[in-house]
Amino acid sequence: MARMALGLDFGTESARALLLDIESAAEVGEGVAPYPHGVLDHNLPTGEDLPRDWALQHPTDWTDAAARAIREALAGSGARREDLVAVGVDFTASTPLPVTAGGDPLCLQARWAREPHAWPKLWKHHGAKEEAARINALARKRAEPFLAYYGGVVGLEWLLPKAWQVLREAPAVYAAADRFLEGGDWLVWRLTGRETRNACAAGYKALWTARHGFPSPRFLAALDPELARFYRDKVQGEIVAPGRAVGAVTPLAAAQFGLPAGIPVSAAVIDAHAGVPGAGVGAPGTMVIILGTSSCHLLLSREARFFAGFAGLVADGILPGFHGYESGQAAVGDIFAWYLAQAVPAAVRDAARAAGRDLHDHLAGLAARLAPGSSGLVALDWHQGNRSVLMDGRLSGVLLGLTLQTRPEEIYRALLEATAFGTRVIVESYVAAGLPVERIVACGGLARKNPLLMQLHADILGRPIDIAASDQTVARGAAIFGALAAEPAAREPADVAAAVARLGAATERRVTPDPRAGAVYDRLYALYRRLHDHFGRDAREIMHELRALAAAAGPPARGD
Amino acid sequence: MARMALGLDFGTESARALLLDIESAAEVGEGVAPYPHGVLDHNLPTGEDLPRDWALQHPTDWTDAAARAIREALAGSGARREDLVAVGVDFTASTPLPVTAGGDPLCLQARWAREPHAWPKLWKHHGAKEEAARINALARKRAEPFLAYYGGVVGLEWLLPKAWQVLREAPAVYAAADRFLEGGDWLVWRLTGRETRNACAAGYKALWTARHGFPSPRFLAALDPELARFYRDKVQGEIVAPGRAVGAVTPLAAAQFGLPAGIPVSAAVIDAHAGVPGAGVGAPGTMVIILGTSSCHLLLSREARFFAGFAGLVADGILPGFHGYESGQAAVGDIFAWYLAQAVPAAVRDAARAAGRDLHDHLAGLAARLAPGSSGLVALDWHQGNRSVLMDGRLSGVLLGLTLQTRPEEIYRALLEATAFGTRVIVESYVAAGLPVERIVACGGLARKNPLLMQLHADILGRPIDIAASDQTVARGAAIFGALAAEPAAREPADVAAAVARLGAATERRVTPDPRAGAVYDRLYALYRRLHDHFGRDAREIMHELRALAAAAGPPARGD
Repeated sequence: MARMALGLDFGTESARALLLDIESAAEVGEGVAPYPHGVLDHNLPTGEDLPRDWALQHPTDWTDAAARAIREALAGSGARREDLVAVGVDFTASTPLPVTAGGDPLCLQARWAREPHAWPKLWKHHGAKEEAARINALARKRAEPFLAYYGGVVGLEWLLPKAWQVLREAPAVYAAADRFLEGGDWLVWRLTGRETRNACAAGYKALWTARHGFPSPRFLAALDPELARFYRDKVQGEIVAPGRAVGAVTPLAAAQFGLPAGIPVSAAVIDAHAGVPGAGVGAPGTMVIILGTSSCHLLLSREARFFAGFAGLVADGILPGFHGYESGQAAVGDIFAWYLAQAVPAAVRDAARAAGRDLHDHLAGLAARLAPGSSGLVALDWHQGNRSVLMDGRLSGVLLGLTLQTRPEEIYRALLEATAFGTRVIVESYVAAGLPVERIVACGGLARKNPLLMQLHADILGRPIDIAASDQTVARGAAIFGALAAEPAAREPADVAAAVARLGAATERRVTPDPRAGAVYDRLYALYRRLHDHFGRDAREIMHELRALAAAAGPPARGD
Repeated sequence: MARMALGLDFGTESARALLLDIESAAEVGEGVAPYPHGVLDHNLPTGEDLPRDWALQHPTDWTDAAARAIREALAGSGARREDLVAVGVDFTASTPLPVTAGGDPLCLQARWAREPHAWPKLWKHHGAKEEAARINALARKRAEPFLAYYGGVVGLEWLLPKAWQVLREAPAVYAAADRFLEGGDWLVWRLTGRETRNACAAGYKALWTARHGFPSPRFLAALDPELARFYRDKVQGEIVAPGRAVGAVTPLAAAQFGLPAGIPVSAAVIDAHAGVPGAGVGAPGTMVIILGTSSCHLLLSREARFFAGFAGLVADGILPGFHGYESGQAAVGDIFAWYLAQAVPAAVRDAARAAGRDLHDHLAGLAARLAPGSSGLVALDWHQGNRSVLMDGRLSGVLLGLTLQTRPEEIYRALLEATAFGTRVIVESYVAAGLPVERIVACGGLARKNPLLMQLHADILGRPIDIAASDQTVARGAAIFGALAAEPAAREPADVAAAVARLGAATERRVTPDPRAGAVYDRLYALYRRLHDHFGRDAREIMHELRALAAAAGPPARGD
């Protein structure tokens, strides 16, 4: 009888179910179901308008889509429900929702359904800008000990700003909420009947550190007296590392999701972080880069080190027994998508159509023929701010070196190069901090789809890049967490590492750096660094002033 | 009987003839004839390939097109040939050609027709980069007195680098050339039978100063012993100010061009500079801005002052009796054209088409609705280098403040704003040098065609901009020079000023600055200045290094 772990991957637009055979390590089935309501960023399901910068989700979408995806995965694989032996869950974060003590979302109660703050706030909800700014200012002033674990900056997408926004703007919702819970923890609670907090989201998104716990009531009271008991009252449950079992699937959940009852469920994990075991990495020294709309750089270590360049350092945050480091670029694929939508001329689009090729592929084909440095362009990849060593959301993108001869494929390539330069800054910050990066594995949507991007990464980093042989490293990682939870034997880091190495995706191919290109890119990187340090440090008030001017001008008039 | 002055305007692609009634100051006839051979930038008429960066013209095109344009102008106006009382000629510069002592172009002789260096080098021929660099290096080292008249830099488009290129690459052509002559002076020679040098091209493009004459044989010999006698042997003829008569139309020329014999012909003038009287400006205090693919800023003064911000300061260079200052931006309309061709997305083009509107107008319409500062963008308008206060051709364009929300009309507007910021830098440099700018008149293709651009100039400069009521200020200026040459009474600056005021184009409308927009633009301009000073001065090696990398990479691989 086959033994399979189920990975449930809750993304921004859909839920995915992946069946991983834990004997053969093969992906044997997959199902995807979009969320019927999508992202709620204009209206509530009941019609109420939402402010700009908001992004909500519908909790029933999560459960319904998961059930459909599981059904589809089982049907497609030919496996039987009874073959499933464990479940792992990954989820976007911070995506918190206010719930009752019994775990019922407030937004599903008639009384609260028309109240926007009663709904889950999706990770990319940006309504809590002011709260984040005040949290950061006070934390810096008081030198709060948690700051060092986050590169000195609390993100506006994290739990505390979001919850505080609820308190300030809808105190009745805040009062009615017995808990504020991450979507991933809520799902695991639904599956197991047990309320816990996964160490990953608690650490990376809720300011929890193994050493100091959650932020102190004194700090919270200084922010807002009403917030003083936030963690104590509304963020309860044991902290559990991903890969440790929270409990077993209840009969009720078994019926709802089409699972066998009684199989173990791992603590949840943030989606990107699941990519680490998904890519077969369970030990220090290998950086996993998840390349999608944005990027994450994840590294395991036995040591905690503090330096500029990571966004989060969490004990047990990725895999039990290791410190997990996270860095990231706020926009990668999003920059290329912006370029394609907003700045590729009609002539290029027409040429791609005439050649019967996808626009991305067409441009990449043209860009691949260019010699390094030949365009005279260098770009800064800060179209969504910088969330690595500079940790500054008010930074913005730059394109420098434009001439009347500049062609579209040159700009496209400069943008690709910029994201690779951004990764080099991150990698160098790790190495400088004494955290060796011996190998790099790339996974995520772009890793397999954009060979030019990966070659540029190899050339610019001067290191080989291994491409993970799976399109579903994240969902696969979730399945692996399930498998780990099902094997109580895997208690020691070495056991975890061995299990992950066996179950994770293999390397599909190794992209090797071209030393001649690398020599040119070393010179270009020196220029990138100068721009980086100038606009990100010495003269960062320039971009801040531009943002201030834009904010003062109010929302843009909308076009034709 | 009507009395008309004929303005002959020799541009890059065509010759134009304008008839100006010197009693009523009305433009009564116009003719345009394209050059049959256009710009020779790929091949000679005999088929020989030309190197990259070359641009030549065909001298027979000039005479043929002029004759056709004159015929068309007379025919369209109903005027008779006998109504013409004077001729003025403006010409691109430096557009020199090697000729025999009798004025015959070498390129029209069978012996030299296949030799690229025998042909006229159009102003935008960029083949003499190395010569220009060596001239500049030596002139700086020797502190040559002419340098101060050119903002410290000799342009690669000027006469000496072009002639030296001929000497170095085709010494036989150099030896066979009795003269190197500007196209404008050659035309005037053809018309009058008299060889002269117009003070405008001699001053702005051939390093002639009233005080020091041409560069010394000692300096030339230090460049290249063969070049020592260049000016003495090959640049002969009296220096004559535009507006002064060189002579009268010869019977031969009368037959060739369809003109009455015996009417006076003014010394030639550079095309842009003819825009000053064309716009009705004949006295100090009013800056004329010619806005086209590039821009020229021209100001008359009774005083010679030396400061960073002008490209040329020439006694009698624009109008007799005045010092003429010239500044300029290397690319203005060219930047917008580049943007439209290379970076406007298909969706915007499609929307413009659907609305039945020109793409420029469509974008300008969208951009006009934006609030100042709302895009968070600021650009540097150096896509063709900077030829005003920084005088650095290795600088390049910058777009800063990009986000994932940046829209095409925001980029378009930022590029327009950047050119206005560039003009503000120039105007401020004049004012700081004690040269008052009391009024600004804009003319040229963009002045009437792009109202948004002119409003941005007014808002950003914080000054009203007067738009000249003529599409042909340059050709009209040439006609006015003819009229001045026909009135020997106009000898004193005050007489010149009065005649120009009477014959120049009126102001069509005054664009008034919006003080609220101005307040935002003062803040944006402060940022522009910081970028300007950083990339143009403190850290200019960044853009220089980008150019060096591009040059080292060799010519780009071309398209599909």
